[in-house]
Amino acid sequence: MREASSLPSVVSDRAAKWAARRLLAALPQAPVRIALPGATVGPEHGALATLRLADRRALLELCLDPELAFGDLYSSGRLEIEGDLLGLLEASFHGTLAVGLRDRLPRRLRERALHQEPERATANARRHYDVSNDFYALWLDERMVYTCAYFPAADVTLEEAQLAKMDHVCRKVGLRPGMEVIELGSGWGALALHMARRWGVRVRAWNVSLEQVAYAREQAEKQQLADRVEFILDDWRNATGRCDALVSVGMLEHVGPRHYAELGALAARLLTPKGLALVHTIGRSAPQRLNRWIVERIFPNAHPPALSEMLRIVEPNGFAVLDVENLRRHYALTARHWFARYEANARRIEELVGKATARAWRLYLAGTVASFETASLHLYQLVFTRAANDAIPWTRAHWYAGA
Amino acid sequence: MREASSLPSVVSDRAAKWAARRLLAALPQAPVRIALPGATVGPEHGALATLRLADRRALLELCLDPELAFGDLYSSGRLEIEGDLLGLLEASFHGTLAVGLRDRLPRRLRERALHQEPERATANARRHYDVSNDFYALWLDERMVYTCAYFPAADVTLEEAQLAKMDHVCRKVGLRPGMEVIELGSGWGALALHMARRWGVRVRAWNVSLEQVAYAREQAEKQQLADRVEFILDDWRNATGRCDALVSVGMLEHVGPRHYAELGALAARLLTPKGLALVHTIGRSAPQRLNRWIVERIFPNAHPPALSEMLRIVEPNGFAVLDVENLRRHYALTARHWFARYEANARRIEELVGKATARAWRLYLAGTVASFETASLHLYQLVFTRAANDAIPWTRAHWYAGA
Repeated sequence: MREASSLPSVVSDRAAKWAARRLLAALPQAPVRIALPGATVGPEHGALATLRLADRRALLELCLDPELAFGDLYSSGRLEIEGDLLGLLEASFHGTLAVGLRDRLPRRLRERALHQEPERATANARRHYDVSNDFYALWLDERMVYTCAYFPAADVTLEEAQLAKMDHVCRKVGLRPGMEVIELGSGWGALALHMARRWGVRVRAWNVSLEQVAYAREQAEKQQLADRVEFILDDWRNATGRCDALVSVGMLEHVGPRHYAELGALAARLLTPKGLALVHTIGRSAPQRLNRWIVERIFPNAHPPALSEMLRIVEPNGFAVLDVENLRRHYALTARHWFARYEANARRIEELVGKATARAWRLYLAGTVASFETASLHLYQLVFTRAANDAIPWTRAHWYAGA
Repeated sequence: MREASSLPSVVSDRAAKWAARRLLAALPQAPVRIALPGATVGPEHGALATLRLADRRALLELCLDPELAFGDLYSSGRLEIEGDLLGLLEASFHGTLAVGLRDRLPRRLRERALHQEPERATANARRHYDVSNDFYALWLDERMVYTCAYFPAADVTLEEAQLAKMDHVCRKVGLRPGMEVIELGSGWGALALHMARRWGVRVRAWNVSLEQVAYAREQAEKQQLADRVEFILDDWRNATGRCDALVSVGMLEHVGPRHYAELGALAARLLTPKGLALVHTIGRSAPQRLNRWIVERIFPNAHPPALSEMLRIVEPNGFAVLDVENLRRHYALTARHWFARYEANARRIEELVGKATARAWRLYLAGTVASFETASLHLYQLVFTRAANDAIPWTRAHWYAGA
């Protein structure tokens, strides 16, 4: 990397303006201005936001690798966004879709990059979830549920919607008192604890995050559920035993498509003949890789799958799909709640994790809202069981009987 | 083909028994006996059924090509099944699954065989549906609905369950009075007429079967709906116009996987931006070709897709899946109703279509029951819409509000 100080002499005023205009031209649906020291480019009126760059080197970095540089420059404070952050992100997502810039690498290439071996998977998950429990507590709900909520109506609180989501999942896998449940990827333990307390089941829950498992075990003790909920600090591949219901809420994003068939084979070993399984994951309407900045800086090696990719869990392993539900709009609303809390606690978050991390996560959460609002991302709940299981519910009406 | 008369001298008693035993060994889960003139092979007690073969040539044909010969010999009466026909078929399907004989040809080979160009598709559909309306009237419900019914409870009548299915479909695509609906593959017109009458929409329905379209037009006149329901005798590929809802119930089986992306592209042209689409089809839990006898004798070129195959309608065309429901057990029950009516009308059916056709369809319907009972076949209802359509229902609760 060249030094910043050498750049002003390299990049002329004219070249800087030309580069800024090229950047703006790549975002035809997002009316924005780019402001450099001594020069501003873009519409005089009606801009959604102004991107204020600290120097010309920032402009150069943005031109060379916009996907990565945008987030990095924002995190370090060398890019400020003045104006409507959410609106800007939504417009640029819409723009990306409209101009067909979706990245569709050949499957094998795409997946090679998303290889998640156990050691690496553990390291990656820890990098994301071990930021610190206090950090997540400042913007998640009181139960620390870091997955899409389910809003029976759009005006219920986030706390109520997370409860409703957990019950929706429990209904879908047909929980009854005394059942054995296995959870793969259990976060801070909210779902496992809720299942045991409200549905009367025993749960064994796998998770590789040290911070999350410590927190979840503490909660199990506090709630006097430690005899019925076991949190196991280990990779999902090592899950053992038998269960009447298998749930995995918000883990598949970390698994990598090359391992979906393996996850399905594990489910086939764990599930009793009449057991139902549910996988809840962020996904796509068609196969596409995730934004590089998110993969490299926030969510190491994450991949939100298309439904066709998810079926590799089901189809090679003697399972049949019973139900798929797309909760995209529920995730947009969930992320709006998170972003609002994040903004309200901005000062405390910055004190806790430092300015750069705080800014990176602010951009990430705003981008999450925008991604679901613009349908760049979807949220799938997939229910499956052994193909010939006759002990399946006759209809789905009872899932909605209490509504 | 050698002449039947030359065979007794070619096939010795010992060879015939050996061949019969080999056949039985291939069906380890189905305890059956094979009876030949002068020889019986198989368990003395506890057999589900006895397969009585007219001669040794029938045995030879069964050994050489069991998949095709079983149905052909039964149709011609050279094979009689004494005992529990449904039980025998279910046991042999279970057996096939258990010993892993599922046919999984490479995708390209499989699909080459399932190529459905418009002319051929028309000829094939006509061969199936133009048997005669009177024939179908002898075993379908009063509305002539030849697709899986929806039983809100297992004890409702077939007539009620077909009504419930049509309303279930209408709810899923969010019908409201005044909407424009396009139906692709409309059978005898029951759904199109029901939509117009009960849901107050206008329907244009495409179908290539002469007999069905004639019947449906007659019904539209009788029910004074001809001004609101138009039946168009043409291939689905030629559908035109715009619609607020697109439905296709029981046509995808005839389309062939090579044409799914084309069907999706057509849907993208026909649907308004907020429109919902529903495809209802017999399917598989994993890609597999259909039994050759059914493909060659009953359902020309039919292919029940796996969900991963169906997604070629959705994923390349800017759509997102909203909902998938598997109604496998509903089809098993539907087919049981059809089979019971078929048995009750056996004599009239034989008078109408002749003995060979009557026997072929008897075997086909019994096989349909067995296929759904044993999960060799599934029934998928898939709902999709443009990926970024925000006018989607917030939850599915209202689909069950009247239940």
